[in-house]
Amino acid sequence: MPDDPLARAHELDRDDPIAGFRDRFMHADEETVYFDGNSLGRLPHATRDRLRTAVDEEWGAGLVRGWSRWIELARQAGDVLATGVLGVDPGEVVLADSTSVNLYKLAAAALDARPGRRAIVVESDNFPTDLYVLQGLAAARGLDLRVVPVGIDDGLTVADLDGVLDDDVALLCASHIAYRSGARTDLRAITARAHDAGALTLWDLSHAAGSVPTPLREAGADLAVGCTYKYLNGGPGAPAFLYVRAGLQAELRQPIWGWFGQRDQFAMGSSYEPVDGIERFVVGTPPVLGGYAALEGARITAEAGMAAIAAKGAALTGFALDLTDAWLAGHGFAVATPRDPARRGAHVTLHHPRAWQVTQALLAAAVVPDFRTPDRLRIGLAPLYTRFVDVYEGFARLRRIMETRAYSSFPAERSRVT
Amino acid sequence: MPDDPLARAHELDRDDPIAGFRDRFMHADEETVYFDGNSLGRLPHATRDRLRTAVDEEWGAGLVRGWSRWIELARQAGDVLATGVLGVDPGEVVLADSTSVNLYKLAAAALDARPGRRAIVVESDNFPTDLYVLQGLAAARGLDLRVVPVGIDDGLTVADLDGVLDDDVALLCASHIAYRSGARTDLRAITARAHDAGALTLWDLSHAAGSVPTPLREAGADLAVGCTYKYLNGGPGAPAFLYVRAGLQAELRQPIWGWFGQRDQFAMGSSYEPVDGIERFVVGTPPVLGGYAALEGARITAEAGMAAIAAKGAALTGFALDLTDAWLAGHGFAVATPRDPARRGAHVTLHHPRAWQVTQALLAAAVVPDFRTPDRLRIGLAPLYTRFVDVYEGFARLRRIMETRAYSSFPAERSRVT
Repeated sequence: MPDDPLARAHELDRDDPIAGFRDRFMHADEETVYFDGNSLGRLPHATRDRLRTAVDEEWGAGLVRGWSRWIELARQAGDVLATGVLGVDPGEVVLADSTSVNLYKLAAAALDARPGRRAIVVESDNFPTDLYVLQGLAAARGLDLRVVPVGIDDGLTVADLDGVLDDDVALLCASHIAYRSGARTDLRAITARAHDAGALTLWDLSHAAGSVPTPLREAGADLAVGCTYKYLNGGPGAPAFLYVRAGLQAELRQPIWGWFGQRDQFAMGSSYEPVDGIERFVVGTPPVLGGYAALEGARITAEAGMAAIAAKGAALTGFALDLTDAWLAGHGFAVATPRDPARRGAHVTLHHPRAWQVTQALLAAAVVPDFRTPDRLRIGLAPLYTRFVDVYEGFARLRRIMETRAYSSFPAERSRVT
Repeated sequence: MPDDPLARAHELDRDDPIAGFRDRFMHADEETVYFDGNSLGRLPHATRDRLRTAVDEEWGAGLVRGWSRWIELARQAGDVLATGVLGVDPGEVVLADSTSVNLYKLAAAALDARPGRRAIVVESDNFPTDLYVLQGLAAARGLDLRVVPVGIDDGLTVADLDGVLDDDVALLCASHIAYRSGARTDLRAITARAHDAGALTLWDLSHAAGSVPTPLREAGADLAVGCTYKYLNGGPGAPAFLYVRAGLQAELRQPIWGWFGQRDQFAMGSSYEPVDGIERFVVGTPPVLGGYAALEGARITAEAGMAAIAAKGAALTGFALDLTDAWLAGHGFAVATPRDPARRGAHVTLHHPRAWQVTQALLAAAVVPDFRTPDRLRIGLAPLYTRFVDVYEGFARLRRIMETRAYSSFPAERSRVT
């Protein structure tokens, strides 16, 4: 840490090649320091404008005729995500449903495609909904759910899989970025190990999409899901995405046979026959407003480019860790996030025994972080709109809270913030 | 039909107790006659305003803090639908996912609750996605899908069920209003017959919710789903609703175990344990923008009241049938919709061998109907904003198209309009 961290922050901002993207987003006040773009990304101006057009003109004036445009939206957004965010091919990604529903569809399809195999592998620290969805599938089918215990701040490593993957495993499901610690899993090595055992892989990219490169293509990864409301700035409850490797699509059939996955949909035929391609993983009428918001958010990320975004994410989190070491180590914080930037995403997580109280004190000081049970302060540094001076300012306020023990006046109860 | 149908239309509008509700909706131009509110309802002014607030203030300025409000939205809208639209109790309805996904969840839950029974009953003319979803479930579980052939304009009748319902039937699934003909099924009698056989009932209310009373409570109906973007004016792709009879909720477990159905969700526990109540049928993060639009739309319907809406729907469709008889019978049209207003919903469907061409000619004349394969012209008369003079004007333009054979210049190909 340099002697003058504020000067360093200004210098980093000056040299930031994507600094200009901050102006694409709404900033309602200059006082708030927003460290929770990994729960809900900011509102892009383009999205506000697009939604007004969609509501007033396309729905309000165009009425049902809007469907000639809306019917393409899920695939259109999917293609932007594929080529501009996830590094895969057009036709491998589509917008649909929620992350949980997509996880269910793809996991079920994968299990159906490996009928002789009786086990699913998942990491113990995967996001809760991933665990629940797989528990449900395992219970319904009488399968063995092998929960691999992982160091809670480490994410899944290849070594964790020793003795776990065998020829009874149909599917391995893991997160690319651990939602609590921010640890980045070695997607390529783990996919290779799963493939060696003949298993399919299903990646949850919710905290990765828009924060780090996702080497799906390089890994030959099979399946992925993720949400668009975090780093992709798609807004609250925006539809999720799903990815299915092109070569695998014809082999898979998802369990919810809906009319938006039907061949020649408006023939209204009486027997389900899924379309070719990624749309076979779509079910019902797609959400249009959330879909537009997801599309606009994805476009901005694609325009900035994942390489620049990831580089800035590494620098932002590095600066945050420097400030932690310099200012907070004496106040009972322990760093949960890996020190190696190649091993983390764009958020930094700090353990503190009074993390919930500290979170409340930060909110009162107009710093918006996130709390994750039981003792984690999660600091999301969304690269598209977070400045280094924001990191400086937020940590300066946190230091002051610790120095004055301002947190001690807040109650010790759990957050309902997602 | 009176000698002067235009005067009659004006008279009916003057006496319409809910005529004032038309002003709650956007009408971008006075020329368009909109007969497709049963595909996509109009935009309420309140919804436009609510969406601006949600986007600009709650998301844009409030950021993640908006979730303290949004987290209640699915249930809040569900309660409005329950008490103001569907005639059931608060806590029996929730907003979630798409109609197709909800149908899957509830059908699967019902089948799990009747494990010894090996058959599902569905009507042959049910909406395609309903057929597909049940086909998928039957295939996955090795169940017998009994497709009851129904007269294509009649909807399912009790007599159709003779010899079909036995003690092997776990579930009967049917639509309250047939999506093509508009025929209204006797929900009470059919539910009673299913219950006599020990089967559960799952109703698709997509064309019923907001157009006719749905006697779920009187029938003791078990399960229902429906969309909010038709008569409920929730906008394109707005989230669907699901209903589960209160006394049945604890017994049922849906197959997609997601974190929004989890007890003490933000404890992020590692084992799925569903909450008590209707929220156990929710899966992932709810769509907020579509959710707000569904809520506002439902509120307007609830305010007008289903009795007044249904009475106006019967009068509008009756007037349309009068005009059909007076003006169109000689032009090759045949009425598909039941003549008895108690046996139909709020749309009228006419067979015509050149229905697709006639649809195109109407669109060119600024009348927006819908086409349903193979030969149906579907005329939706959404009671909240359709005037009797609109019916007059739309039918007058249709008569002119037939008299001048203006339809013959349009190509004979299928619509992609949903």
